[in-house]
Amino acid sequence: MCFKLKMFIFKNFLDFVKFSFLLIIISNNLIAASIDFSYTSVRDKILESERVAATGGSIWLNAREAKANAILMKAKNQEITEGLRNPDIYAPSMHFFHAKSRIRRSEVFRIISKMPKGSFLHGHQRGMVSSKWIIKNIMSQFNVFSCRDQRGIFIFTARNHTKCVTPLENVCTERNNSPDKKQYDRVLEKHINMFTLHPEIGLTERNKLWEKFENIFYATEDIYKYLPVFREYNKRILEELYADNIMYAEIRSSLSPLYCDRNRNYSSLEVLNELEQIVKDFKKTHPDFIGMKIIYAKKNNANKAEMCKRIDTFKELYKAKPNILIGFDIVGQEDLGEPLQKFIDELSELPEGANFFFHAGETNWFGKTDLNMLDAILLNTRRIGHAYALAKHPQLWDTIKSRKIAIEVNPISNQILGYIWDLRNHPAAFYIAEDLPLIISGDDPGIWNGKALSYDFYYAFMSFTSAHADLRVLKQFALNSIRYAILTPEEKRQFNKIFSKKWDKFIDEIINSKY
Amino acid sequence: MCFKLKMFIFKNFLDFVKFSFLLIIISNNLIAASIDFSYTSVRDKILESERVAATGGSIWLNAREAKANAILMKAKNQEITEGLRNPDIYAPSMHFFHAKSRIRRSEVFRIISKMPKGSFLHGHQRGMVSSKWIIKNIMSQFNVFSCRDQRGIFIFTARNHTKCVTPLENVCTERNNSPDKKQYDRVLEKHINMFTLHPEIGLTERNKLWEKFENIFYATEDIYKYLPVFREYNKRILEELYADNIMYAEIRSSLSPLYCDRNRNYSSLEVLNELEQIVKDFKKTHPDFIGMKIIYAKKNNANKAEMCKRIDTFKELYKAKPNILIGFDIVGQEDLGEPLQKFIDELSELPEGANFFFHAGETNWFGKTDLNMLDAILLNTRRIGHAYALAKHPQLWDTIKSRKIAIEVNPISNQILGYIWDLRNHPAAFYIAEDLPLIISGDDPGIWNGKALSYDFYYAFMSFTSAHADLRVLKQFALNSIRYAILTPEEKRQFNKIFSKKWDKFIDEIINSKY
Repeated sequence: MCFKLKMFIFKNFLDFVKFSFLLIIISNNLIAASIDFSYTSVRDKILESERVAATGGSIWLNAREAKANAILMKAKNQEITEGLRNPDIYAPSMHFFHAKSRIRRSEVFRIISKMPKGSFLHGHQRGMVSSKWIIKNIMSQFNVFSCRDQRGIFIFTARNHTKCVTPLENVCTERNNSPDKKQYDRVLEKHINMFTLHPEIGLTERNKLWEKFENIFYATEDIYKYLPVFREYNKRILEELYADNIMYAEIRSSLSPLYCDRNRNYSSLEVLNELEQIVKDFKKTHPDFIGMKIIYAKKNNANKAEMCKRIDTFKELYKAKPNILIGFDIVGQEDLGEPLQKFIDELSELPEGANFFFHAGETNWFGKTDLNMLDAILLNTRRIGHAYALAKHPQLWDTIKSRKIAIEVNPISNQILGYIWDLRNHPAAFYIAEDLPLIISGDDPGIWNGKALSYDFYYAFMSFTSAHADLRVLKQFALNSIRYAILTPEEKRQFNKIFSKKWDKFIDEIINSKY
Repeated sequence: MCFKLKMFIFKNFLDFVKFSFLLIIISNNLIAASIDFSYTSVRDKILESERVAATGGSIWLNAREAKANAILMKAKNQEITEGLRNPDIYAPSMHFFHAKSRIRRSEVFRIISKMPKGSFLHGHQRGMVSSKWIIKNIMSQFNVFSCRDQRGIFIFTARNHTKCVTPLENVCTERNNSPDKKQYDRVLEKHINMFTLHPEIGLTERNKLWEKFENIFYATEDIYKYLPVFREYNKRILEELYADNIMYAEIRSSLSPLYCDRNRNYSSLEVLNELEQIVKDFKKTHPDFIGMKIIYAKKNNANKAEMCKRIDTFKELYKAKPNILIGFDIVGQEDLGEPLQKFIDELSELPEGANFFFHAGETNWFGKTDLNMLDAILLNTRRIGHAYALAKHPQLWDTIKSRKIAIEVNPISNQILGYIWDLRNHPAAFYIAEDLPLIISGDDPGIWNGKALSYDFYYAFMSFTSAHADLRVLKQFALNSIRYAILTPEEKRQFNKIFSKKWDKFIDEIINSKY
């Protein structure tokens, strides 16, 4: 005794009241326009109101963008359809180390690669450049030595490093003497890359992931402080960003003093000058590149006196270079570091005009490390690095939204460091659904050969957003990265102008290429 | 030039305005009472407002409860402190198969085991009883045979089963003839338990998890349909619930006809009668047990005509047994099943008084399978099974809250079936922070020897809630499970009375035992 109902029929008045109530609650902004109460129509309206409320929901596409969008969505739908059939090899659900070769073959990824992505706002200077390039270039162009410290940890250096307990080996010589040079490079690269064939094993010993990660920074610290390498390295940062269609960056740097031949040392201020010059030179050859600014960032294991000193150093540097130095951060494995709360007094001395860009909530803990987010907000942070634990703190959402504190989400980093396995479970899906201020970034793409932002954008688009989310959310990611960057009005004007041009070119490319 | 500030000092009026604004937004319910603007005081108030807004936030503890709470929280803090030191062996972050032996040694778990937990509201009849007990009892007490079907899948039966292509082996005889009986039992149990030594491997081939899971149900289907086994099995369900301090259950059952010796078959209605009698008998010996009701649940791979027939069958059964049969559901791997939307017409024929308890959103997909949640709500579902994908759909939260649609969260099930690894990433942390209507359940605890609800409650308490969440959230979990159960006013009155008595006894036990 089943009747096929073309319309959703209300059994009685009560149901009707309930139903209208539901409609008002769910899509109160749409009720006025709605007189069609069929099941399908109500359902569609709720879905549409979800789309509008999410990141990118207020963007309107012009005719050409709509055309490009259709091409993008055809590719996205194909990947999803294939993924529903073979979920175990659906790249957006897989670990980056398993998925990378699949992503490279993805049409969506190819489109994203070409897309102008705006700014790179969460990156660590010494994790930015592809390890592959480092091995191929830095290790062969310069007089690089390797050694081990007393714990057996690998170190690259260009001087008699006090931490070395084994004899210095010249990397060039060793390489030339090795029977298989490619194999030698592969082994060498392992010291500066997180790759592993079976990342799933890492889930049962996640502490080791951070240890490996810290060891990579430890291995390269001294060689990156060697002025000639420093120059090449930082130039390369800009090249890799530019190659991935990124026009601007704000990079966390410790601004540690550099060394050079003949025992000449370079102070933090001189490091800033060096960086300024490198960016200037790069802009000469790449006039559509906006620039790179620096967030002063030191490790999170300081005592109060040390923190006090850092703020003082920052003040001096900031006074000298307020245009390139924009703010202050504390970095390192947050779960093991000192809580922000410890430094409230010291941190309240930040000079006028400078900003905090605190790492906070990069944790799976709840009611512990994650409280750094609360302190970051109370300290008036400009953006928050990661805020991975934010979904657990509804009391902070409104503030983040009303004060436009952008969340810097780093999908692949969170995965590789063991906070999450399937990125479709990442809380950013929720941030995007709620349209919290957010930008997508890469953290340390060099350390997993992550190609600046494209892979992270791929995951953000495919794993964090609905199957129905389209070019509008991608465009909003880029626009957010401009909006939440620290730019002068003139820089912003120029940036928007260049972005707009590049965006149009990108749209043309999609339409004209044989996607 | 750092000054230690005992108070958080506002640099200028603008900061003060910003800060008050923050305070109003974050804790608008507290502003009136607040005149203390010190950093610590503001921080504490925000944290307190988070606690109050979360599940359990409105519960007040009496003096004895407060004393018991102190004991509970001492144990919780100890585990967390130890976990911060050794995060890789912190049970709440680990997979159940790695963590089980650790959880068993946990003080928090011991307290939770003794706690009266109210109702078990999301369980599948054939996944309820510990596989260990099945092997030890069903397989030795009855004339059970095993065989393989043409795909090689294992089957237990008590008759000449048409699906068997290998000769029937008598399990008792085989066991008696085996050189190592314990080893024989272990191998046998593997056919009806999800356990694996390295669950992390499962993350790369998650489809196999559901396959294994379905094969377990397939293996036991026919033996559980054998009336003498059916009786023992369902009696055991009640015993295991009762042993874990659960007083009531609502169980999904297909009510498939039973068979017995001499070719006598039992219809679905007779199955209901059988269940009613088993519960009646159990209540005679356990007068403080409230009962067990049935949700009629069939597989999600039907066509429209079949769904129509099911609703008709349900109508008949419901007419005959409205007190024990309370509603309707569709079950199976949601990602592979038919979407709810397909059956809107058929499902709108549900008889007055009956309820839907739809599985919906048990998925990692976004904009696909998860849309079942929207249809479940539009179909006026009474509760939602899993709603794992809910955090991605802010437009549905208000409706779920205002219409008190309880979410049935099954922590261990979600983990074992590969939806999530670290349960601290489970969206339920967010549901609890937002105080969405929710109950904690076990889904199929027998299939992972999960001891009814205690392990799930342990994860819910340790992985989903803040380090500061205490006895109040646990009590609320239990109270919710009574509140969202389908009970007559008389049953509810009796339940509350019994629960209250048991709760007091539990509090006394904590205080008096040497925790």
